[in-house]
Amino acid sequence: MIDPIRRYVPILDWGRTYSKRALSNDLIAAVIVTIMLIPQSLAYALLAGLPPEAGIYASIVPIMLYAIFGTSRALAVGPVAVVSLLTATAIGQVAEQGTAGYAVAALTLAFLSGGFLLLMGVLRLGFLANFLSHPVIAGFITASGILIATSQLKHILGISAGGHTLPEMLGSLLEHLPGINWTTVLIGVAATGFLFWTRKHLKPLLKRLGTPALLADVLTKAGPVAAVVATTLAVWGFGLADQGVKVVGTVPQSLPPLTLPGFSPDLLGALLVPAILISIIGFVESVSVAQTLAAKKRQRIDPDQELIGLGAANLGAAFTGGYPVTGGFSRSVVNYDAGAETPAAGAFTALGLAFAAVALTPLVYYLPNATLAATIIVAVLSLVDLSILKKTWGYSRADFIAVAATILLTLGLGVEIGVASGVGISVLLHLYKTSRPHVAEVGLVPGTQHFRNIRRHSVETDPSMVTLRVDESLYFVNARFLEDLVQKRVIDGCAIRNVVLMFSAVNEVDFSALESLEAINHRLKDMGVGLHLSEVKGPVMDRLKRSHFIEDLNGCVFLSQFEAWESLAAAPLPNAAE
Amino acid sequence: MIDPIRRYVPILDWGRTYSKRALSNDLIAAVIVTIMLIPQSLAYALLAGLPPEAGIYASIVPIMLYAIFGTSRALAVGPVAVVSLLTATAIGQVAEQGTAGYAVAALTLAFLSGGFLLLMGVLRLGFLANFLSHPVIAGFITASGILIATSQLKHILGISAGGHTLPEMLGSLLEHLPGINWTTVLIGVAATGFLFWTRKHLKPLLKRLGTPALLADVLTKAGPVAAVVATTLAVWGFGLADQGVKVVGTVPQSLPPLTLPGFSPDLLGALLVPAILISIIGFVESVSVAQTLAAKKRQRIDPDQELIGLGAANLGAAFTGGYPVTGGFSRSVVNYDAGAETPAAGAFTALGLAFAAVALTPLVYYLPNATLAATIIVAVLSLVDLSILKKTWGYSRADFIAVAATILLTLGLGVEIGVASGVGISVLLHLYKTSRPHVAEVGLVPGTQHFRNIRRHSVETDPSMVTLRVDESLYFVNARFLEDLVQKRVIDGCAIRNVVLMFSAVNEVDFSALESLEAINHRLKDMGVGLHLSEVKGPVMDRLKRSHFIEDLNGCVFLSQFEAWESLAAAPLPNAAE
Repeated sequence: MIDPIRRYVPILDWGRTYSKRALSNDLIAAVIVTIMLIPQSLAYALLAGLPPEAGIYASIVPIMLYAIFGTSRALAVGPVAVVSLLTATAIGQVAEQGTAGYAVAALTLAFLSGGFLLLMGVLRLGFLANFLSHPVIAGFITASGILIATSQLKHILGISAGGHTLPEMLGSLLEHLPGINWTTVLIGVAATGFLFWTRKHLKPLLKRLGTPALLADVLTKAGPVAAVVATTLAVWGFGLADQGVKVVGTVPQSLPPLTLPGFSPDLLGALLVPAILISIIGFVESVSVAQTLAAKKRQRIDPDQELIGLGAANLGAAFTGGYPVTGGFSRSVVNYDAGAETPAAGAFTALGLAFAAVALTPLVYYLPNATLAATIIVAVLSLVDLSILKKTWGYSRADFIAVAATILLTLGLGVEIGVASGVGISVLLHLYKTSRPHVAEVGLVPGTQHFRNIRRHSVETDPSMVTLRVDESLYFVNARFLEDLVQKRVIDGCAIRNVVLMFSAVNEVDFSALESLEAINHRLKDMGVGLHLSEVKGPVMDRLKRSHFIEDLNGCVFLSQFEAWESLAAAPLPNAAE
Repeated sequence: MIDPIRRYVPILDWGRTYSKRALSNDLIAAVIVTIMLIPQSLAYALLAGLPPEAGIYASIVPIMLYAIFGTSRALAVGPVAVVSLLTATAIGQVAEQGTAGYAVAALTLAFLSGGFLLLMGVLRLGFLANFLSHPVIAGFITASGILIATSQLKHILGISAGGHTLPEMLGSLLEHLPGINWTTVLIGVAATGFLFWTRKHLKPLLKRLGTPALLADVLTKAGPVAAVVATTLAVWGFGLADQGVKVVGTVPQSLPPLTLPGFSPDLLGALLVPAILISIIGFVESVSVAQTLAAKKRQRIDPDQELIGLGAANLGAAFTGGYPVTGGFSRSVVNYDAGAETPAAGAFTALGLAFAAVALTPLVYYLPNATLAATIIVAVLSLVDLSILKKTWGYSRADFIAVAATILLTLGLGVEIGVASGVGISVLLHLYKTSRPHVAEVGLVPGTQHFRNIRRHSVETDPSMVTLRVDESLYFVNARFLEDLVQKRVIDGCAIRNVVLMFSAVNEVDFSALESLEAINHRLKDMGVGLHLSEVKGPVMDRLKRSHFIEDLNGCVFLSQFEAWESLAAAPLPNAAE
């Protein structure tokens, strides 16, 4: 048992044993991640509809707080694509983009999200994130990738357009298409093409040229930086900003400012549900990444403490000019691959970005938005994976329906409705599946003590008894199904004197199912038929004993099905002729 | 296989063999039920806020249509208490009581409800009603009984009051208390007392006096009729209507009129959700009664065809001046006890009520509302059963929470929110329970081939292998739980070379769980640990084979756990010193 302070502040744990070697590894990783994060932070702020510095600020204090409270050694926290899109959708409903209210709404969203994550962490409710099934997450991420890429086309085309759903976005793009700026298109297409090329072909090329592996890796990761530098220089050198190419413009040269989220009840009320959604999606993404990376080193993360780490990070973002953050996939993988050993790597990255915020921001004045859009498009298209449709189709129709519905609803009705419907549909499909459980009528395999499905095996049966093996826990959704099934079976077979329910796969009997069992018992008693149970599990039996069911049972509870067979099959048959 | 017409029109089935004996039994039952239904129909119309004749009309055509399309031989369809309360709540939100719009809203509600039931029946969606768990239904019925009884106090006190929740109702009663009419109170209290007395004590008394059982039964059931006759005569004889005693007044002397529900999209939209709720609750109540009565005679009902029968009945109500109806508990039990053999008894009851509508309505002019309120109070208080709280507390905390929340929310926030929350809470609690399944680490019982929980039994284990028996189906809600559990167990035990998952109680592996199993497999492979499965059920194995999981498995699938033990426990231990 670790003491409560060390449990909630993991830095006290790993900080004690921090070595010189870990320091140098962390520093190297920090440099690589910082280079990658500068353009990414600017780009995601653009995606969220916020000024570029918000993206950098959101990468400084949050990452430091996560280093103190988080449990993953490699997770890099900051703005990510999907959360940026969700932020834009949520705050677009309460404020106009570009206004002061919009930025305050972003801070408020981060504040609510941080508070909610912290609360979940303290209450140890991390398991709630499990209600998002893998297919729903996969479908949601894929659809979000498509939405994000589409939302960036306006920057590539140099037009203004809006919309939160695919039809809205495409309609708005078509409407504004006449205002297309061909210089912007040239820059955007060149940057996109270059980034796709570096991502796919640069590393193999460098390797063939004999570049050392680590250097090849760094150069590939620096692709966005190269695109940023080249297009910024081009805009500056050829005066393209005068030809209508939109650029990032003035970014304040400053450390993260102290900011306050809005506390008006209207604003808090309007953003609460989106904040919860963002928290859960951000948490799921972050935990998946952290767990995958931890497993590679036989380390563990604590999902409940992760909630606290991410909650602190979001609160940090709310008070230092940021917006909602979470553990990002690409940056965390880069951090891990670059050799980060402890959360200190994140803290060093934060220092690097703080330096950039103070010293480098004047350099991005001429950086075209089209380049940032290109980096986003290339990054998010790697999230789009329609193969999940094929995989789930092959494996299970219910999962396929959940994925397909999530993708279609996210694209057609927006991210919030999409993911909420996905969760609802998964739950309903699960309830539907368990509402008609597999129940096999079983008989004795001759010469053994085993019982098998009479439809699949050649087994011995007795016309006076019917044994039903229930392959599902019994609870309210399927309780009545069993009632119907037993009644149908007994009415169809007039010779039946005894019914045995074989409970080997019944892991729970809830109160509704108990009442159904009581109803079955009474009905069978009225018909002069005995009801027996066999192979009831310990915890289920313990619970049944708390009710009067076992006392009132018009029959026995047998430890094994074979005992039931031996006692009952030998019973004299009142209608032996049948 | 019966042909489609006979499947959808069960009267063609039982009608063929209708005998003289059944006819005389059905006629006797019809007379008894008719006598009981006259005051009950008037009373429930009062509860729904509708003119008294609506209750009678709702008992004529609907019961005939049910006789044609329904499958229960004893079910009596008509207005019932809970559905009347739901009707009052729903249409009170779209129209003022006493206006023409209010009556049209009631017809529209019956129309939507009928359409929805019919649609569910044709799509064979009867299982959806199972999402209402027994505790939620019990809690809802109890809370509704309290709400209904409270709503009738205003008639007993002779004041006007409103409200849809318990606090609203009590507040409104207190507010209007100064207007109390003592003559009304006298009638109301006397009628209530008399009805409670007949219900509890009349039958034993008559038996002691040597009255034949059937006659004693009929006399007891006729209690409400006696109260109606006595109080009507009192009001008429002493001119109490002039002293402020509210009476039923003029009821049109007519057969059910032809009416049309409203078809405005606004009205349909506003009533759709309440109509669905009423349909489902009415269906659940009706099916429970029908199933209980059918079982006593080893008969069966078809829940999907019941949807069609109830749907037709509600459509009938919509076009003949009624309001939503369903199969009532008390009237059905009376019908059954009185010897009804076929749905024809219902049709004869309808004829009796049609006669009453034409010939007897002038007689109820002086019938005081207080008497009707008394019959409702006495009827619904028998529905109030708080013992469900004690029973569920003893059996399962989750079920207790569902009941308690349903009762409190129904009383505090109204019937619609109450029942919707009850369903939501049951589903969430079920998901919560299955989200942390029981997983036992098992070992070999010495000298046998059986494996038992190492914490409960003295068993043999091997430090190089760990066997986890998963006592729950694996699906998205608990998939990550298993990931965490396996990872924790393996990291804690450095000597572990093999992990066996024993799947004897796993009835399903959905796509999320498959991905978690794949993740577990990859992580264990990274750690140099094997992953094996044992005792996988046929349907689960069939499904797993559709994926690449079995091919990629870093281990084997064993038919029995003992095989797994024999193959793996003998493996050389790399760290035998541990």
